[in-house]
This record gives sequence, C-alpha cells and structure tokens, in this order.
Amino acid sequence: MGGTVVNHDQQFIADVLIRDGLIVEVSPEIKAPEGTRVLDATGLLVMPGGIDPHTHLDMPFMGTVTADDFYSGQAAALAGGTTMHIDFALPVDHDIREGLRAWKEKAARSCMDYGFHMAITKWDAEVSEAMEELVREGINSFKFFMAYKGVLQVSDSELASGLQRCKELGALPMVHAENGDMVAWLQERLVSGGITGPEGHALSRPAALEGEATGRAIRLAGVVGVPLYVVHVMSIDAMEEIARARQSGQRVVGEPVASGLALDEGALWDANFTRAAAFVMSPPIRAPHHAPALRKLVATDHAVFNSSQKAAGRHDFRKIPNGVNGIEERMHVTWQEMVVSGLATPSDFVRMTSTAAAQVFNVYPRKGRVAAGSDADVILLDPRVSHTLGVGSHHSRMDTNVYEGKVVQGKVVTTISRGRLVWHEGRLRVEPGSGRFVPLPSHGPLFQASAVRGHGMEEQSRRAATFPYGPTPVPREGSQQACSAAGAL
Amino acid sequence: MGGTVVNHDQQFIADVLIRDGLIVEVSPEIKAPEGTRVLDATGLLVMPGGIDPHTHLDMPFMGTVTADDFYSGQAAALAGGTTMHIDFALPVDHDIREGLRAWKEKAARSCMDYGFHMAITKWDAEVSEAMEELVREGINSFKFFMAYKGVLQVSDSELASGLQRCKELGALPMVHAENGDMVAWLQERLVSGGITGPEGHALSRPAALEGEATGRAIRLAGVVGVPLYVVHVMSIDAMEEIARARQSGQRVVGEPVASGLALDEGALWDANFTRAAAFVMSPPIRAPHHAPALRKLVATDHAVFNSSQKAAGRHDFRKIPNGVNGIEERMHVTWQEMVVSGLATPSDFVRMTSTAAAQVFNVYPRKGRVAAGSDADVILLDPRVSHTLGVGSHHSRMDTNVYEGKVVQGKVVTTISRGRLVWHEGRLRVEPGSGRFVPLPSHGPLFQASAVRGHGMEEQSRRAATFPYGPTPVPREGSQQACSAAGAL
Amino acid sequence: MGGTVVNHDQQFIADVLIRDGLIVEVSPEIKAPEGTRVLDATGLLVMPGGIDPHTHLDMPFMGTVTADDFYSGQAAALAGGTTMHIDFALPVDHDIREGLRAWKEKAARSCMDYGFHMAITKWDAEVSEAMEELVREGINSFKFFMAYKGVLQVSDSELASGLQRCKELGALPMVHAENGDMVAWLQERLVSGGITGPEGHALSRPAALEGEATGRAIRLAGVVGVPLYVVHVMSIDAMEEIARARQSGQRVVGEPVASGLALDEGALWDANFTRAAAFVMSPPIRAPHHAPALRKLVATDHAVFNSSQKAAGRHDFRKIPNGVNGIEERMHVTWQEMVVSGLATPSDFVRMTSTAAAQVFNVYPRKGRVAAGSDADVILLDPRVSHTLGVGSHHSRMDTNVYEGKVVQGKVVTTISRGRLVWHEGRLRVEPGSGRFVPLPSHGPLFQASAVRGHGMEEQSRRAATFPYGPTPVPREGSQQACSAAGAL
Amino acid sequence: MGGTVVNHDQQFIADVLIRDGLIVEVSPEIKAPEGTRVLDATGLLVMPGGIDPHTHLDMPFMGTVTADDFYSGQAAALAGGTTMHIDFALPVDHDIREGLRAWKEKAARSCMDYGFHMAITKWDAEVSEAMEELVREGINSFKFFMAYKGVLQVSDSELASGLQRCKELGALPMVHAENGDMVAWLQERLVSGGITGPEGHALSRPAALEGEATGRAIRLAGVVGVPLYVVHVMSIDAMEEIARARQSGQRVVGEPVASGLALDEGALWDANFTRAAAFVMSPPIRAPHHAPALRKLVATDHAVFNSSQKAAGRHDFRKIPNGVNGIEERMHVTWQEMVVSGLATPSDFVRMTSTAAAQVFNVYPRKGRVAAGSDADVILLDPRVSHTLGVGSHHSRMDTNVYEGKVVQGKVVTTISRGRLVWHEGRLRVEPGSGRFVPLPSHGPLFQASAVRGHGMEEQSRRAATFPYGPTPVPREGSQQACSAAGAL
Repeated sequence: MGGTVVNHDQQFIADVLIRDGLIVEVSPEIKAPEGTRVLDATGLLVMPGGIDPHTHLDMPFMGTVTADDFYSGQAAALAGGTTMHIDFALPVDHDIREGLRAWKEKAARSCMDYGFHMAITKWDAEVSEAMEELVREGINSFKFFMAYKGVLQVSDSELASGLQRCKELGALPMVHAENGDMVAWLQERLVSGGITGPEGHALSRPAALEGEATGRAIRLAGVVGVPLYVVHVMSIDAMEEIARARQSGQRVVGEPVASGLALDEGALWDANFTRAAAFVMSPPIRAPHHAPALRKLVATDHAVFNSSQKAAGRHDFRKIPNGVNGIEERMHVTWQEMVVSGLATPSDFVRMTSTAAAQVFNVYPRKGRVAAGSDADVILLDPRVSHTLGVGSHHSRMDTNVYEGKVVQGKVVTTISRGRLVWHEGRLRVEPGSGRFVPLPSHGPLFQASAVRGHGMEEQSRRAATFPYGPTPVPREGSQQACSAAGAL
Repeated sequence: MGGTVVNHDQQFIADVLIRDGLIVEVSPEIKAPEGTRVLDATGLLVMPGGIDPHTHLDMPFMGTVTADDFYSGQAAALAGGTTMHIDFALPVDHDIREGLRAWKEKAARSCMDYGFHMAITKWDAEVSEAMEELVREGINSFKFFMAYKGVLQVSDSELASGLQRCKELGALPMVHAENGDMVAWLQERLVSGGITGPEGHALSRPAALEGEATGRAIRLAGVVGVPLYVVHVMSIDAMEEIARARQSGQRVVGEPVASGLALDEGALWDANFTRAAAFVMSPPIRAPHHAPALRKLVATDHAVFNSSQKAAGRHDFRKIPNGVNGIEERMHVTWQEMVVSGLATPSDFVRMTSTAAAQVFNVYPRKGRVAAGSDADVILLDPRVSHTLGVGSHHSRMDTNVYEGKVVQGKVVTTISRGRLVWHEGRLRVEPGSGRFVPLPSHGPLFQASAVRGHGMEEQSRRAATFPYGPTPVPREGSQQACSAAGAL
Repeated sequence: MGGTVVNHDQQFIADVLIRDGLIVEVSPEIKAPEGTRVLDATGLLVMPGGIDPHTHLDMPFMGTVTADDFYSGQAAALAGGTTMHIDFALPVDHDIREGLRAWKEKAARSCMDYGFHMAITKWDAEVSEAMEELVREGINSFKFFMAYKGVLQVSDSELASGLQRCKELGALPMVHAENGDMVAWLQERLVSGGITGPEGHALSRPAALEGEATGRAIRLAGVVGVPLYVVHVMSIDAMEEIARARQSGQRVVGEPVASGLALDEGALWDANFTRAAAFVMSPPIRAPHHAPALRKLVATDHAVFNSSQKAAGRHDFRKIPNGVNGIEERMHVTWQEMVVSGLATPSDFVRMTSTAAAQVFNVYPRKGRVAAGSDADVILLDPRVSHTLGVGSHHSRMDTNVYEGKVVQGKVVTTISRGRLVWHEGRLRVEPGSGRFVPLPSHGPLFQASAVRGHGMEEQSRRAATFPYGPTPVPREGSQQACSAAGAL
Repeated sequence: MGGTVVNHDQQFIADVLIRDGLIVEVSPEIKAPEGTRVLDATGLLVMPGGIDPHTHLDMPFMGTVTADDFYSGQAAALAGGTTMHIDFALPVDHDIREGLRAWKEKAARSCMDYGFHMAITKWDAEVSEAMEELVREGINSFKFFMAYKGVLQVSDSELASGLQRCKELGALPMVHAENGDMVAWLQERLVSGGITGPEGHALSRPAALEGEATGRAIRLAGVVGVPLYVVHVMSIDAMEEIARARQSGQRVVGEPVASGLALDEGALWDANFTRAAAFVMSPPIRAPHHAPALRKLVATDHAVFNSSQKAAGRHDFRKIPNGVNGIEERMHVTWQEMVVSGLATPSDFVRMTSTAAAQVFNVYPRKGRVAAGSDADVILLDPRVSHTLGVGSHHSRMDTNVYEGKVVQGKVVTTISRGRLVWHEGRLRVEPGSGRFVPLPSHGPLFQASAVRGHGMEEQSRRAATFPYGPTPVPREGSQQACSAAGAL
C-alpha cells in the first residue's frame, strides 16, 4: 500500500489488493480484508513484473547444456524482478511435437510463469501440420534461423514456406537474422589466417551481415504478407532495416537485448580468455555506438555456460558455446541505462520490460499491467537504492557474469509472482513446480487491421487477372500507424 | 451494458457503470443500482468520447467571425461523438490575460467540456509574465504563428524567446508552421500575375514552405531544448521533418487534421467559387499523395465561415476567410479512412481521436479512457450503420460542408458527456452552460525524462567552461524512445 | 567539319580530323590533308560513339539461341550509333577458358569493336586460377548470378570467394541481383495457383526481391572490400540500396537499361501473348514510377528471341526465353527520355551512353571521348529529325520490337567506327571480320585510392591483434567522393 | 617535360608546351621550339592550377580591413599552387555598381587571374537593375547573407526576389546560410550569461542553425526554380540538407572550405585568446565528426586578420573579426587530407581544387584543365616532399596561421601563372599589375537542361488554369542526374 503504481500509460499513488493470484483492486485507499498481508510501498514504485521474451533454459547447444535449468534460471529471474519468460523450445530430431513435450518436461520444476516459442529447423509437410497442433496448445510464435549453417539454418525458400504457414495460423514468425553462409566463410578464413581467439567471433559476424539478413527476412515477410519479429537485434544496421520497413507500413518488431544495451565488444579482445569467452553470443555484442539504437522492448537471450564449458573453444572461437546471462540483470540494467540516465520515464520502462512483450505475445492485460483482473505479477522497485551486479550476488548457476562490477541505481526489493511473495528483504522463497505454463493465443494485435494491407504475393496474385497494370505498390508513407495496434510495438 | 469496451491498449466485453458524471465501474457483469438508466450496447463499441485538440469557435478572423459559437460548435461535436475540445483563445490587443477572459466569456454557453490553448502574437516582458499566470489558470500550451505576416506572425527570435519561456513553465509550445514571408511574396506575384481565384491559395502556400517552417521550428526548439507541437500538419514535407527529429530523439508531435486525411486540393480548382472557397484553409489541403503521411492523433482546425463570408474573397483569394468544418465529422471520417479501410484497429482509433490528445495535454486518464475514475465521456459506435455526411444532416451553423456527400460506414449512435445522455437515437439534448472548463496542468508527459536530454543551448553553455571540445552532440539514434512516455505521442 | 563536338565535360564547335582509325586533331579550323573525305556536320552534334556494356549476342539460353549473332547485332548497333559493346561470355561446362575461346569464335564475324565480361557459374580452384589467365587476356569483369536457381545461381559463400578473387586481380565483380530461391518459390506457387501467363513473370519477381539481392551483394562486397557493379538495375528498391551504399563511401555502380527507362510492366498483362512475351526479361520491367530512378550509365541487356522462340512459354511463363532488344534503340531512347525531355544536357547524354562505361571498364579516353589520340568511334546526331522505332526500320533479326511505334526526336545520321564510315545517309556498310577485340585492363579507376579504405574483413583482421576494440567502423559520411575517380561512376 | 599530366578525368605521361600564356600542346614527346625554357617534370604531377572560389582580400569588415590585399594574398596563393580566385566584391553603401568599381580598383595590383562574385545587401529596383549590368561585365554569381542581422542580412522575401532575379539573368545565387536572428538571440543570452570568450562564438552558432538556414534557402530556390550555391558548408546538418535536395533532382552545390576539412572547434576553447581568436570564422569550425561530410569542391573563405585586429574581441567574442587563412594552404591541406589519406585519387584532387570551380563558374576548360587551348595556369606537385605549414614559411601578411605546425606530404614546387614562372625552387617572382580580371559568363552548366524542370512557382502558375489538380509534384527520384552537366557539380 501507498506505493506509486506505474503502468505503461500512467502512474498514480494507490493501494493494490491481491487475492488468489489475481489483482482484485487498485484504488487510492483500499480497506484490506482481514488477514491480508500488508506491504508498505511508500516511496516505492509498484510495477508489473518483467517479461523476458527470449531465454534458453536447460538447452542443449554446441555439445553441452546451459548451466541454468528452469528452476535456477527462474529463481534468478524472480530475484531480478522478472515474473514471466518465454523460452525457446527446440525440436527433438526436427520433431516439434516432441520438442514441446521435452520442454514441458524440463519446465516441470518451474517456479514462475512461462510460455514457449518453438524453433523450426527443417521444413516439410509434417512440420507444417504439427505447427497447427502447437498453436492449439498455446504456442503463437515460431523461430527460424538464418545462421548456424548446416545445423539450424533454413534456406530462403524454406523460410518463405514457414512465413506462409505462420500467416495462415496467425502465429508470429521470428528470425535469428545473420547470414550463416557468410559467417561460415569468414570463420574459415579467419581460422586459416591464424585468428582463433574470441575476437574472431566478432570479426566473423560483422554488423553488415546482421543487417543483411534482417533486410532479407523483412523483404520475405513483405512478399508473403505477414508480421515479423526479429530476435536479438544487436546493430544499427539491423535497426535501420527495421525502421525503414516500419516507416513503409510493414509490421516488424525488433527485439534488443540487455547485453546490447549496456556492453561493448571490446571485451572480446580481452587477453584473459575466460573473460573474453563469457561475452561470446550471436549476433555478437557490438561497438558502443550501436547501443543507442537498441532501446525498445528489451529481452536477454539468457543462455549461460560456465567457464569450463566456454573453455571448449579455447583454441577455436567457433567452439565457444554462444550465450550470456541477463535474465536476472535485465530489469536493473534497463532501469539504469534508460531511466537513471534520463532517457525514459518509469512508464517507458514498464512498456519496454513488460507491457510490450505482453502485447506482442497476446497476453495483455493479463500480464503487463497492474490493474484489477490481471495476474498478480507485481514488483516493488526502490529507486533510491544502488547495488552492484556480479557473481557474488547473482542467483544464476553461472560462474561468471558479463555485468560483473556494474553499479546500478534502483533495486527491485520485492517480487510477487501470481500472488506469492517470492523475493522480499533479500530473501528468495521459491518452490519447484509452482510455475505455470501460460498458453499464448494466436492472432495477436500484430495480425489485426491488416485485412486490406497484405503486400503479400497472394493478395496481389488474386488481383492479377483483372488489374491491367499488375500489383499496385502500397504507397511509401502508407499507413505507418497501422502496425501500432499495441502501442509500443 | 454488453458492449465492447475499446481503450487504446485493449478491448473487451463489459458493462460500464456511470454515476455523478464519472465512470465508477467497468466489469463484465455489473449489477446496476436501482434507478440506473440502462442502455443496451450489444454489438456496439463503447469508447472514450473524442477530444478535438484544435478548434476555433466564435473566433474573429479576417474581418468576420466564425459561424459556429461555443454552443453550436459543441452541439455539432457531441452529435459527432466528440466530448471535449481545446479551443484557441486569442489575445485581445496582444493581451493574453484579456484574451483568456474574453474566451471564457464566449464559452459561457458551453454544452460540453473544453480547455484552452493561448496564442502569442507579440513578445514582450508583459506577455512573458502573463504566461505564468495563465499556466496557473490551466493553460498548458501556447501557440506561435510563423505565418500571417504583419498580423499574427512572430520573428524567429521572438519565437525562440517564447520557446524558452514555455520551457521554464513546462508549457507546450505550438507552432503554425508556414513561411509567412514567402507566402506573402508568392501571393503578391500570383495576384499581380492575374491569378486571383481559390487555386491561388494553394499555389501561394506550397508544401515546401510548410516543410521549411516546420524544420525551422524544430531546429529552434532543439536549440532551446523544449518539446514542440506542430499544429495542422498537412504535407509529407512537414511530416518528414518531424519524423527525422523524432528519430534523433527530439520530442516533436505533429497534428494532422481530418481534412488533410480525407480531402484533396483538387477542389480549389473547382469552377464554382463557393465550393472552391469552402476548401480554403491554411496550410492548404494538399494533393492526395500527402494523405497517407497524416495518420496520427487527429484534430480538425474547425473554423467555419458561411458562403457569404467566404465570398469576401471572390476577386482575391487572399481575402477568403481561412477555415473548414470538421468538429462533427472528425470521428466518422477517421473511422472510415482508418478502420473501415483496414489500416487501423478500433484501439488505434481511440488513441488517434482521444487518448493521444489527453496524454499530450495532460488530462489522461481523466479523459481518453473508459475506466473507473475517469470522466463519463463515452460514446457508442455502431460499426454496422452507414450514413452520409453533409449540410442536410450536420449540426454546425455552416451552410456548406467540405465532406458533402461522403458516405461513411460506422456511426456514433450515442454520446454521453460527463454522464449526461446528450446524443441518442438521433436526438441531441444539450443545454447551454452545462459545459465545464477543464484546466490543463503544466509539465505533461512530454516534459518528463528529459533531465539529461536537453540539446538546449542552456545545458550546453553550462558545460562550456569545462568541456574542452564544446558541446557533445547527442548521438543520432539516441533515445528515440524517450519521447514516448505517452504511448502514441 | 563544323559540327558541335560534345564530350562529357564540354561542348564546342570544331572540326575533327581522322586518320588510320584514330582521331588526330580536334580544332576550330582544320586544313584537311588532300584526299580526306569531308563530311559537313553543320548543325549536327559530333559525339563519341555509344558503348553498350551489357549485351548477349549469339547466346544459348533456355534451350534456344538468341536471334542476333555478332554480325547482325553489331550491324544494328552501328545503325543506332553504338560503336562498341561488351558482351557476356559464358563458360562452356563451367570452364571459363573454354567459354572465352568459344565467344571469341562467335565474334569472328564482328563488324565493330567489342570486349567481354565473363560469367562465373561455379566456384572451384580451377575457375579461380583461370580467372587470372583471363585477366591477362583482357577480361576485367566477372559476373555472378544470384538468380536462376539450379542453373547459373551461386551461393553467398561462392559469391564471396568470387568477390575476394576479383579483389586480388583488380577485376570488377558484377552481379545479377535477384533472390533466385524466392523467385523459384513464387513461380511454383503462381503456376500451381493457375497463373501461367506472362504476368506471372512480373508477379514472381517483385521489386522487393531485386532490392533484397542488391543489398545482399553490396554487403558482401563491403565485407570483402571490393567495388561492385550491379547489372540491369530495374527498380527503386535496388537503386536505393545502391544510393545508400555510395553515400557511405562504398564503390558501387548500378547499371540501368534502356528498357527500364522507357517501358512499363503493363505490357506483361497484354492479352496478346506474343506481345506480352516480347517484354519478358529479368529482372522484369517495372511499374512506371520506377523509371525516374534509372537515369545513369545506360546499357541494354540486348538478348533477343523471335516470337516463335518466345512461344515456348505459351503455357508456362517460366519457359519464355528472357530478353528484350535495345542495342540499336538505346541511344535514341536515351536522347528522347533524357535530353528531349529537358532532364539532361548533351554532355550528360555522352557520359551516360559512352564515357561512363569507358571509364568503368578502363578504356577511357581511348573510347568515350572525341579527342586527339582517341579511337575514331564518332557519331553525328541530328537533333532536328524525328523518326519512329520498330520492326519496320530496325536492323536486328528480331521479329518484334519492344519500342514498336515509339516516336523519338533526334537521329544518329552518321556512324564512324574506327575511322570507317559505316552508317551514313540511311545506308549501312559493314563488313564481317572488321571488328576488333578490345582488351580491357584490370585495376581501373574504381580500384584506385582505396589503399586505406577497405572495409574488408581482411584489412580489419590485420588490425585485430593490436586494436583493442576491434574494427573501427568507417564513418558514415566517410569519403563519399573517393569513388568518383571517374566522374560519372 | 616528362611529368604525369593529371586532369579530372584521366592522367598520362606527356610534355606540355606553353606559348603566350596558353597551353598549345600536350603530347608524349614534344619537340620544344628553340628558345623554350624546359622544366624537367620527371616524377612530378602536372596539374591545372588551383581555383579558390571564395576569398576576401582587402575587405573592410567589422571595423577593420583584412590583412591581405590583392597583391599579398595572391602572392601567397601562387606560392601554394592556386592560380585563380574569385573574390567577393561588396557593395559600397548598398550600391553594387560602386562596389564592383571599388573592387576592381583594389585588384589593380593583382599578380594572378581573378574573378568576382557580388554580394547583395539590400533589395530594391535599383539593385535589381544594376545586376543585369554587372552580369554583362562578367559577374555571374550574387551572394545573399542569411546571417549578420542588421548589417548584411536579407529577409526571406528579399532573398526570394534576389533568387528570382538571378534566374532571369542566368546568374548563380549564393547564400551564407546561418539563421542570423537566432545567432543574435543566442549571442545576447550567452554574453548576458557571462560567456564572452571565443567559445561563445561556437556556442552561438550551432550546426542546427546552419542546417536550418541551408534547408530554408534550398526550399526558397526550389520554389523559385533556380540553382543554388551554398558557401562555406561547415556541418553535417547542412550537408544532409544539400544531399536530400540533390537526391530529389534540385540543383544545389555546397562549398566546403579547407578549414572545415582539417581543423576542429576545440581550438575555440584554447585558454590562449590569441590562438583561439585566430580560429573564429562563420559558420564556425565544427567538431571533428563533421569533417568527413565536407569532401567536394574546396574553397577557403580566406579572410585574415592579425592578432591585434582579432584582439578587438578580447572581452566580447562578437567583436572578433571573423575569418581564417587558407588561400596558400588549401592545395596542400586537400592533398594531405584526401590523397595522402587514400580517400581520393590525384584526378579527384584536380576536380575538387580546380575543375569543379571552373565548371560551376563557367570558365571551363579555359581554366581547370591541362589541355591545348587552355590558359597556361599549371602547377608541378612533388608527391615525395613533405613540409610544415605555418607562419614561418607562409606568404600571407597574417601573423598567425590556423594550420601552424601541420606537416603535410606533397608539395607544389612550381607554379606557372598564364605562362609566367612565378613560383619555382622556393622563390616567388610576382609583379603587381600582372593579374587579369576574368569575366565569368552567365548561364553556366547549372542552368542547362532545366527547360522542363522548374519546380518554380512560375512554371506551376502557368499550368494553374488548365491542370485540374494543381501543381503536379516532380517525382521524388526525378532526374537526379540532370544537374550533373559538369561532372563534379
């Protein structure tokens, strides 16, 4: 009680009443029913818990498995003010039904709410059919890899088929946008030229190749006529492709990650391999001038490997498992870089860390808002407290931390997850199995109001017979507002 | 009851309970207290009433007075689903205190809620001081004219002083952005070249001159370090200047008007003078390819003159009183052009016609949202009904209508103004004097989170003594999100 | 004598003395040696003969062979004022040495000067090695196809290897930029959807896919650090990618073709198959609003097939041999669209049709200028004469003409090819075997002044060991002039 | 003999024969007539002498007179390889006829060729009429000041009238583009805020105000339909305005100056007033990241004041006479920054320092090219020699040098001015009175091929009566090549 409630569109002083995992009232002076535990939030900000739309818990990758499983990763998340995440389920032997089953099993020990995206690593009729089944089970987004040649990468025509299928299902296609062919070509040349250290990771994945693949995916989505979500946007190059597409009316969402916002590629040149390797993720962390572009909805791509795991690439950067931490630090890093710096208001912060993801993935306002009827995922942030990030205090199982030593102003002092007080006064009280799978419905806001807007080939072909001059181009400035159904998208 | 409540960020089926001019509850199944009048909203959309941020009622201009006063104009507005407007008060003999007094008097017969902007037509210490007094009385925006040479126009340095003063007061500076010097120069040449008809109006005010002045105002606001609101943006040229500034992190809001969205300049070439003259407004309505750029927050610049008044310019387009209607048609035109066309969702519509204005002018969520605690300004829109706009059915006192004959799908069937049922079943029940002045508080969302962001000369000078290389430029992509405190701004 | 000499940078009245195939003097009043044939050029423009940098004579393609061989195609060229062309030699069974041999044989009956580009359709060590040999023989440009999946198309990494090799050799890499994967995907869907007519050609190759591939090739060339030449740029999409790259300092040349300048895609919807099929080329001719972007150096991609050949695709647009005429019409079409329209000066025309190509392919000022010491490839153009293009008057063997019926102002009345009067008073006097192979030296102007400019991976890797923060990005506005060694590039 | 001749479009080894102040032959092996003095140019570059299109010699300004008169300034120029300059004549009491007379008198002691621009500081019928007379006398460019409020500044409508008059006369309008109103406003605030040092100069003239005025002038020129030349472009802001205009087909030339290329504003913060004041010019020298944009045709704005003169502003930066040196250093600074750095070829250098100016001001190829028939303004540059710039070695009368201590590679070892050997083996041999006025003809290349291109109000009005939809906008990508009649413009 007595805190300042912050939503993405307003802030005001009010009490918040929670019952049975739901927020039941938000008003200036609530008379709490007897037996209600009362927290004094005077001077604190009461905000919707964070939603991290991009994590990899318990993921087998590059011959090893991430250090955080659903329990440890989620515990860390809760300690950092994040109350929901959407994890990437991977197919098992390209079988996406099996993949979902496996990931649900992994999540059995969950201690907070979660959803799933599904990765598509191969294209055939079976996969296409299974997608419909997954949509019915609450998967509303599918990810395609334009990188990782020979492993996860799909061809342009496979991607197009996937985009087409997503369009039919009202599911959001996502892409990892780097030119995998070229990355492999550069890796080969670098290693044969004697560059085997972690700096080779950055050199083999220049921003131009991220920009290229991003532009390519956008064009393909435009031809098919479907919205697009670009995961972990790390460069100005990619951001400009996205901005141009949005300007022209196409619905594209770019997802920056916390590490892109706050870190810089210099670390990859660190003489200490262990430290340098800790920073290896794809696309790589860029030079600092890329950071300012990356200030929208914020994810993490949390995928952590211990020093001993990263050591697999000691003599060949191509073998360093890709991934950095962030699920616990995201909220604090974003508050520091955006609000403390004066670039954003607390309402902006809520939008970036919670509401936008809830809207894109179609669980708003159940998640992403402090309002009567919403899930009781709430955090209290004390803007006056400063603290230091790092291994010493983090809850992940990882033995390094890319934010080691970073001092941030503002601290999440309390986290409430579906009504349970899980983080308070520096203590974490979580229980394996208490988390819940949140099905994400298809046909979210990005799919609305597009009836006549498809630049898609299909819509155009339909007109082909009658229209004497072929496809009329959508006017350049056309309808740039249409894609904003969900405010911050 | 039973309608679909539409807010700018969500829509859901619910009942809305209103008492004493306020919304007191919005829930799925409300038990209405006895005696409550119940409207069946099944199949209808329940939305916040429109807010028209740009009107001129009862305004003396170009030797005559607009045909609509506060009573007739507001009645028309209510019939069209608009429940609040912000009118431009003009100084009396450059005295802004007197101006406010005069406009409050004009508004005595109001039948709906209203606020005021104040125009600044001269710059001196007295005006500067009086601005503070007006801010205390609830004026949070001041408008400067870069056009109307010799009448309303201010010089660049006067504008800069005004911007500086607004910054100090947390009040939003607004500009009418056209190069008045050049307009006068072109008018002179056109008339002396024999072009005296309404088409001369368009030819003397090319889009380039609107773009120029817009860019100039933006640069000045950037140098001073204050947000800027550009009224009646009518061209791609101006829109691109605004887009560029926003991209670079500057806080600029462009205000399109309904006529720019739906009409085209061809009418000014109409052989029928009366018809052509009806379309004369400044900046002029443009060629149709400008329209797609203009799809944000929508105003009207409603300022109407009858045919006999417009006839003053029969032999010299410079004497045609500038202005078109729209206060009544805005909601329907926007619904048609944006939602029916498939370019926007109903939530987008709410944002464009109501929420964005409420946020910019700092009365959100009192206005601009259907939620408990908000003013009971609510409309019911029936998306299935189509009707025809024009003199035959409009409520303005004007004897022409620039939308004459336009068929639109979707109709506001009911308007509730602060709890009063003023428009229902085709009947308008309004009472002079029932409207209320709504004070608009200073330091709205556009002024938040700008602590470290001032590109302003002042902030830079402060650093001048110590920083060896002078002003560090704000990075190009910097903080483009910062200005979005209020979603749609 | 007495004509107005027009070069790309000046025009002046002078006489031109030719001896032994060379221009020996250009001065106001030359005393012609006895026996010299004197042409009166009063009122005529004396210009360097055209250079068409993109033709396909005697080319086997899609199961047939182009209708024009070197003799007939060149004869047509001369009648149209073009005195040199650069033809695309194709490998024989992927063997480029064999390809060059074959094409030299085809050219045995030449009647004007010619050079060769070589296409690369496969990548291996043998091809790489053979490239060096070809460079020594006077081939300074190699073309890679990003389209024609399964036939000519190379992968991104093959393209990168080719770019790298070109860089080593100082040879200019060229790309046919369309996303072949996606074209095939769309073709499949269109045909299976019942669209089999020529309009399917346009629908399966949208401008977005040309823009995409262009941007991709540019990024790859940037990563490798080599100039790039994009053949037949047909769309705004591609042109904007090129403009952006040039703005950032990258050396990219886009080659518009005459058909893109003057025609529009509507013809592909013509009910008459024969007429529609005549317009089939790749990338396709676009909607008319693309044309204004295409006004630089002008080529043709002359590759002609008779109606009976085009008929192969009567029931499946994928089988229509791709190609349109232009080698004869290029000069007249460009004069009409650019000079007669008032958009360009005669000097601009010379640059676009002759000088720029001579500079890019490194034979300037031997070709591309009317000056002492240059080859005597000279034309006389009479700006007062208008005439009509079409089958009735053209010299190609083709039985259709995409410019049929187009009336143009300005006519080449005389063509001198290496001192021989080959086209005069409407008579063509050419002799098979009189043409000459012009070796094109490597390391042309586009390769100069790039010592420190390589954005290339290689240059960056070299710095990788020492520079603590990895690759420093070339500043955005950097050195945009550097690439302009040869004026019009 | 034996040098490498470098022109803007080619370079080759040849001898150059000079007679009577003209180049009479350029060929590989010239037999020099008896008595001809032969210079051995082996290993040297033989280039057209520099043309500095922007100087102020013997100019009264801010209460004093520049330290260099025509004799000393031109002597310095010749020692630095510049053989022609175009000086700004100022009106006497707003009388431009008188101004020209006065400047011709000042130039009586000239020792090299020169032309004049004329400044317009007031607008009335007399000035307008006198312009025609001046054009007949060989003035083809008129400069308007948008800065220096109350002194030289013209209003927008005066500028428009001037642009219109220039259009009628085929004379090139030039603008000093800074918002003088705002500069005065900022100066006032800075000084009253206690900032009186030279850094106040930079702070009072931010790049945004240069960009603003540049954009405004471009829009006005567009409305009138006339080419535009923007003098001393010093910022990215201005450069981007120019680039956008050119992209859209408008003919605008931006003139960077050597100081913008090589210096940075940090010097204005130098604690040593004398040093800081030496760097004061308008627009001010900018932060280093502006430099890369400024790499086209290069001028200097040479206008020098001694330390004692600059001292007038010791307590108020507004009183520091504006101006820096450069007429002698321009060629060396440009060679160093552009060619030695690898950004440009020697041909680019020739275009930037000589040919482009000759083309824009319509004396090409009389000036700006080493070719038979051209004036014998020739320099020999030794690329192997390095030397140091500064007061110790310069020939200006100035007692400071903004390039003090700058080491440059490449040295002009010989300068030939109209056939006279004026600078050789470190010795300057010049004679007052030997220089010659070069009349500059109107209707230069920028005025060609614009018949149908006027976006001008005039052309549009003409169509107003018949065209039912008013002015058709020129297509955005329209004719971007048209303005390039003279290659480097």
